[in-house]
Amino acid sequence: MKNTRILHGNIIYSTSLTQLAAKEDAFLVMEDGLCAGVFDALPESFPKDKIEDYGEALIIPGLVDLHLHAPQFAYRGLGMDLDLIDWLNTVTFPEEAKYAHVAYAQKAYELFVDTLRSTATTRMAVFGTVHSEATVQLARLLSEAGFGAYVGKVNMDRNAPDSLREESAAASYRETLDYLQKLSTLKSLGKISDRVKPILTPRFVPSCTPQLMENLGELAGEQHLPVQSHLSESKREIAWVKELEPGFENYGAVYAAYGMMGNPHPSIMAHCIWSDEKEVEMMRRGGVYVAHCPQSNTNLASGIAPVRHYLETGLHVGLGTDVAGGYSHSVLRTMADAIQASKLYFRCVDESKKPLTLPEVFYLGTLGGGSFFGKVGTFEKGYEADAVILDDSAIKTGYEMTLSQRIERAVYLSEYCRVTAKYVAGQRVL
Amino acid sequence: MKNTRILHGNIIYSTSLTQLAAKEDAFLVMEDGLCAGVFDALPESFPKDKIEDYGEALIIPGLVDLHLHAPQFAYRGLGMDLDLIDWLNTVTFPEEAKYAHVAYAQKAYELFVDTLRSTATTRMAVFGTVHSEATVQLARLLSEAGFGAYVGKVNMDRNAPDSLREESAAASYRETLDYLQKLSTLKSLGKISDRVKPILTPRFVPSCTPQLMENLGELAGEQHLPVQSHLSESKREIAWVKELEPGFENYGAVYAAYGMMGNPHPSIMAHCIWSDEKEVEMMRRGGVYVAHCPQSNTNLASGIAPVRHYLETGLHVGLGTDVAGGYSHSVLRTMADAIQASKLYFRCVDESKKPLTLPEVFYLGTLGGGSFFGKVGTFEKGYEADAVILDDSAIKTGYEMTLSQRIERAVYLSEYCRVTAKYVAGQRVL
Repeated sequence: MKNTRILHGNIIYSTSLTQLAAKEDAFLVMEDGLCAGVFDALPESFPKDKIEDYGEALIIPGLVDLHLHAPQFAYRGLGMDLDLIDWLNTVTFPEEAKYAHVAYAQKAYELFVDTLRSTATTRMAVFGTVHSEATVQLARLLSEAGFGAYVGKVNMDRNAPDSLREESAAASYRETLDYLQKLSTLKSLGKISDRVKPILTPRFVPSCTPQLMENLGELAGEQHLPVQSHLSESKREIAWVKELEPGFENYGAVYAAYGMMGNPHPSIMAHCIWSDEKEVEMMRRGGVYVAHCPQSNTNLASGIAPVRHYLETGLHVGLGTDVAGGYSHSVLRTMADAIQASKLYFRCVDESKKPLTLPEVFYLGTLGGGSFFGKVGTFEKGYEADAVILDDSAIKTGYEMTLSQRIERAVYLSEYCRVTAKYVAGQRVL
Repeated sequence: MKNTRILHGNIIYSTSLTQLAAKEDAFLVMEDGLCAGVFDALPESFPKDKIEDYGEALIIPGLVDLHLHAPQFAYRGLGMDLDLIDWLNTVTFPEEAKYAHVAYAQKAYELFVDTLRSTATTRMAVFGTVHSEATVQLARLLSEAGFGAYVGKVNMDRNAPDSLREESAAASYRETLDYLQKLSTLKSLGKISDRVKPILTPRFVPSCTPQLMENLGELAGEQHLPVQSHLSESKREIAWVKELEPGFENYGAVYAAYGMMGNPHPSIMAHCIWSDEKEVEMMRRGGVYVAHCPQSNTNLASGIAPVRHYLETGLHVGLGTDVAGGYSHSVLRTMADAIQASKLYFRCVDESKKPLTLPEVFYLGTLGGGSFFGKVGTFEKGYEADAVILDDSAIKTGYEMTLSQRIERAVYLSEYCRVTAKYVAGQRVL
């Protein structure tokens, strides 16, 4: 007997990068955690008594946040007049150092997870801090709230304040092993779900010595772990990497030298604003996921990533809120930001690169990042059943709208939309 | 006996373009609708029983929206994948045509005013439609809700669909006189407050024949009316103006020829993204107010206005939401957008133009636009007492913050802030 749920309402999902399916008064069938299809009329073979009726609300796939920093949530929207490196040194690093205290971390992460819980996000790739125990707590809280997540204990053994820097490559490596071990133990005790997984997280090249990078690269191979990091975010950072690692042809080549640019280890590189063509080709070959974080890139005056170019080149691209480089933790907002950034790129940088469209950013925020998690991000048959019920009734208007118009409006006016229910792999989590 | 109100709380206001005063646990004294000063301790001379205690909330000046379109509110967040001219033709004009029906206008404007009522906006310069009666209703509703406003009946006698285009310059002029007359009558009956005033509103050069411009210019002189319009918003629009009015050296020169570029008639020009140096100089000489609408300029892929340059040149600059080129009607959001746009201008267009800072955009959204309305936009002695109580307690964090940090955060996370009370010229309006 299959475990069946049937959601009834106005269903919207991507069928390709450029196409949205928008079906009014339709049925999304979930069986054993997977989508069995979307139907205009419910076929006889499905049990009518399993229908959960969401009336006029929108039903969309769960959203995927491919890059954010949980310990930065506490100070979102602060220090935004600073650039990346100054912001790291004066705001970020001092705060992250506090996560050595598990009680502090626990409290801050509870607030983070609790806030994210009521958003449309269902999956995320998230940075913790360098602290093993605090990051385990983050993973546990995310699991309890029903998220699917890759959770990374950060590595940094150089160029950070004493209070945060790990004292050696070996110490950083040991702390990472400790993190993996603790996570594994909690998983075997059933205290962390299978959908919450570890991911290796060298913060970025400037904060990791070659020895540490080598250790982490080997660890990725031994334990078949994915990797997340930052790449080519700001010009100042790239110059710094060049200075620190003069032997490499570009920033990405440093990661590649340690097996961290995709194949064989799946990897996410955040930002990729200033990647040169060789770096782009390296990402393409490795199947690297670009986490596009338009709001953060704007806030830190880093620049605008050439997403149209990446899509044309065939790169995997998802969206990241990059809390707290981004002050918003909403992936719906990130979709709007991605369109806006692409419009300014088109107008101010390269008029041959057409702005992103609403269907395209919807794809990026669902399937685009979702495929890093497996078959995640849409309602087509066989995909994990991540669904969000979005109530847009607070946006008052006398204007007659189609369903496609309603989803456009929900993206732009997401602050007035309320998530009233949420499912991850068929389980109701809100 | 003076009419006194004293607001107690955390008070923030601009003392110059670059300086914010942020006073915790302070007192804002209002006398007969004007600010009498902000005090750390309440002087004996003021009556303690007039204190209204707002506890931990933020007290800021009322915000000024220097450019928005009331009839576009109904479809905010829609059609954003279009550029300016296409968006006007396919979305805007067909909708504005409906405002020929007063009942339709009345209902739509009620929703608009009702929504704006609970925002931090206290003053606005707003476009209606070409319809006299509908625009009178807009003015009346704004007055009832306590706003200070310049309300414009739009003029357009060419390049608009038949359903919207006024049939001749004479007809457009007559409709404007009718609007002025009706407003004047309602004012004399006490049905519209003195703070709601008419403003001449030729939509933009492409929609107004030279004959109409001449009539309106004369009318401005006869009745001492201010003027609002659009200027140099998009490259395609500028090329069109060049084609329509080949005899002028730039777009602004067309307005100038009819006395609509400032002195002697105060004027607001929205956008000014692509103004050349001669146009900028013309604005400077005329004391023209630039309504900077960063979100709209991004949404319509128009470009980024060089606000830093305008400030260095000594232009008057205020902020506009430009509903519905902007999908947000929040001036707090516009402040954040203005910083973001300036950061991308700095990074992608001209690195000699430093990004705008939080104190600067706060100034633009208060005093910058406020001075168009008289002594409006700050709490210094003698200014009209427009004040907003902002409750930011829904933004949970364990992070310790100064008052200056709280206002930065309130700007970026404005969607979580609630306006709990509002005063215009000393009168409580919410």
